[in-house]
Amino acid sequence: MSKFWSPLAASLVPYVPGEQPKDKTYVKLNTNENPYPPSPAALKAMEDAVNDDLRLYPDPTCDELVRAAANYCGLSPEQTFVGNGSDEVLAFAFAAFFDPAKPLLFPDITYSFYKVYAKLYGLSPKLIPLDEEFNIPMEQFQGEHGGIIMPNPNAPTAQLIPLSEIRSLLERNPDNVVIIDEAYIDFGGQSAVTLVPQFPNLLVVQTLSKSRSLAGLRVGFAFGSEELIDGLNRIKNSFNSYTMDRVALRGAVASLADEAYFRETTDKVIATRERVARQVKELGFRSTDSKANFLFIEHPAIPASELFAELRERGVLVRYFNSPRIDNYLRVSIGTDEEMNTFVGALREIVE
Amino acid sequence: MSKFWSPLAASLVPYVPGEQPKDKTYVKLNTNENPYPPSPAALKAMEDAVNDDLRLYPDPTCDELVRAAANYCGLSPEQTFVGNGSDEVLAFAFAAFFDPAKPLLFPDITYSFYKVYAKLYGLSPKLIPLDEEFNIPMEQFQGEHGGIIMPNPNAPTAQLIPLSEIRSLLERNPDNVVIIDEAYIDFGGQSAVTLVPQFPNLLVVQTLSKSRSLAGLRVGFAFGSEELIDGLNRIKNSFNSYTMDRVALRGAVASLADEAYFRETTDKVIATRERVARQVKELGFRSTDSKANFLFIEHPAIPASELFAELRERGVLVRYFNSPRIDNYLRVSIGTDEEMNTFVGALREIVE
Repeated sequence: MSKFWSPLAASLVPYVPGEQPKDKTYVKLNTNENPYPPSPAALKAMEDAVNDDLRLYPDPTCDELVRAAANYCGLSPEQTFVGNGSDEVLAFAFAAFFDPAKPLLFPDITYSFYKVYAKLYGLSPKLIPLDEEFNIPMEQFQGEHGGIIMPNPNAPTAQLIPLSEIRSLLERNPDNVVIIDEAYIDFGGQSAVTLVPQFPNLLVVQTLSKSRSLAGLRVGFAFGSEELIDGLNRIKNSFNSYTMDRVALRGAVASLADEAYFRETTDKVIATRERVARQVKELGFRSTDSKANFLFIEHPAIPASELFAELRERGVLVRYFNSPRIDNYLRVSIGTDEEMNTFVGALREIVE
Repeated sequence: MSKFWSPLAASLVPYVPGEQPKDKTYVKLNTNENPYPPSPAALKAMEDAVNDDLRLYPDPTCDELVRAAANYCGLSPEQTFVGNGSDEVLAFAFAAFFDPAKPLLFPDITYSFYKVYAKLYGLSPKLIPLDEEFNIPMEQFQGEHGGIIMPNPNAPTAQLIPLSEIRSLLERNPDNVVIIDEAYIDFGGQSAVTLVPQFPNLLVVQTLSKSRSLAGLRVGFAFGSEELIDGLNRIKNSFNSYTMDRVALRGAVASLADEAYFRETTDKVIATRERVARQVKELGFRSTDSKANFLFIEHPAIPASELFAELRERGVLVRYFNSPRIDNYLRVSIGTDEEMNTFVGALREIVE
């Protein structure tokens, strides 16, 4: 605490990201990165963007990327927003759409940054508890409130909400903004972007960090009605005119254009996930039905904290959340087949 | 206005950046970009950073860049913060240090984003009027208030505050944070970073956009006491864990290391500024004593709005602010000697 901090700064409980260890080389399965490199076309475009024009400001409206993303989703540029990673997009969205005077609804077990954003903007979260199988009780998201946010698939549980239930959710809550955070949607889900034209209250947030292998570039999107995108731009243009650098803008456009590579690498991650899900079950683990690029697993006898430490000792880094209800689970990102063989091998050693 | 906007979003008056025209090629002197390309060593480092590791998140604490910037300024990493352009750093600083319950002091003529940030965080600005020569009345920055911010040199007036006056300002205001925004300091000023060890209430903000020719990369810094840097990190980590991408981090480190190139290009900009300042005076213009990479000029007979339009017609883009007291001035970025010859030639045509 410092006497120089504002009341806001003093009140915050900042987010703690998964560790990026520097002590040695790990099989790194702790931050849901893609094990495959970015599209070669995207890398080429970024190399080309490293030139003398970097002396000039980037396009503050990110026109080229906005058009590319809009086009990819079958929407208009006016329905599309880009930002410096989907975390920035979410931060803007919390400020733009959620009313501090009313409760903000989200699942009790979910992306832990939501609570942090709520604190940053003085919002009052009302946590809706997942059921025993970690399903989101969708019917409880209604009534008098100031907005709804949920990831689909949910994190860290990895479970998918069918598009039909998202539609019902939007129909039940026509007067509030509903944000669907689709960081992991490409690994087995159906995106809600198709619902944008029908629901002016829907904002869909996506990222290039996971399925596009560009976590290191910081590019996120939001898709929604023109009035919602306007709202995001009001916040963004009150915060930072130029959130996206020239290299990121060009790399992102090229990445979206390389559909074949995207399909190929995403399919590989999905195939590996399905195989590893079977293998860990054979080792006695319980696993949720993952439609993301990670597994969420627990062992009936060995505490997750112990598994985490034992895996780490064997050079395998996974994510452990010391939080109520999920403190016996591990979140394990899907790596290459070779990395996952190392993981499964280490797990077998520990279990046996 | 939309029923889906939060009260905050509805209340904002977003910043409007200088235009980035796409209709034709201009001699672009409107956004204070550096006319010289980035350091070749920085470009090389960025090219090298465009690789498969972009699939991985960047270092959220930006250790390597923080150390490089700290070292450059003779400070410790704990006294150093980096962000996605100095606009982002300023946005975090407004949130971290300024108390909504007390007035925030800044000059009436200054970087126009300050008003926008104040609105974003519900602060109450108290504008201190510059005198007739656009000097900042430093002695008026004291008394009961919630913080102080000013650029040095000031923008768009280009005038420098001597370091001794910054020191007195800090001594007079020991209980509040004083932010010195040094976007333009390298073009003729003495940085206040040397005062950081003595004044726990001082935050110095800098950028690679101007003197380092990297506006397109989005890199900004803050230097201050450990408790101020902690405060910035609390806000940043409640907003976006990964604000800096891998390419920007590497390019910034390499740029800071290339002192010779930095000196050479900065000296060229200064020499051109001094020459053009003389030339415009010979054409009958009044010019402030610029220590920045731009001139702030007015003509006694021809309205600035007219000059702006005439210059634009001749393919020269400068910045015109339609604001009280400065609506007869043009802000003209310093380009290459060739660009400035075009500018002076156009001006001569218009005036004669």
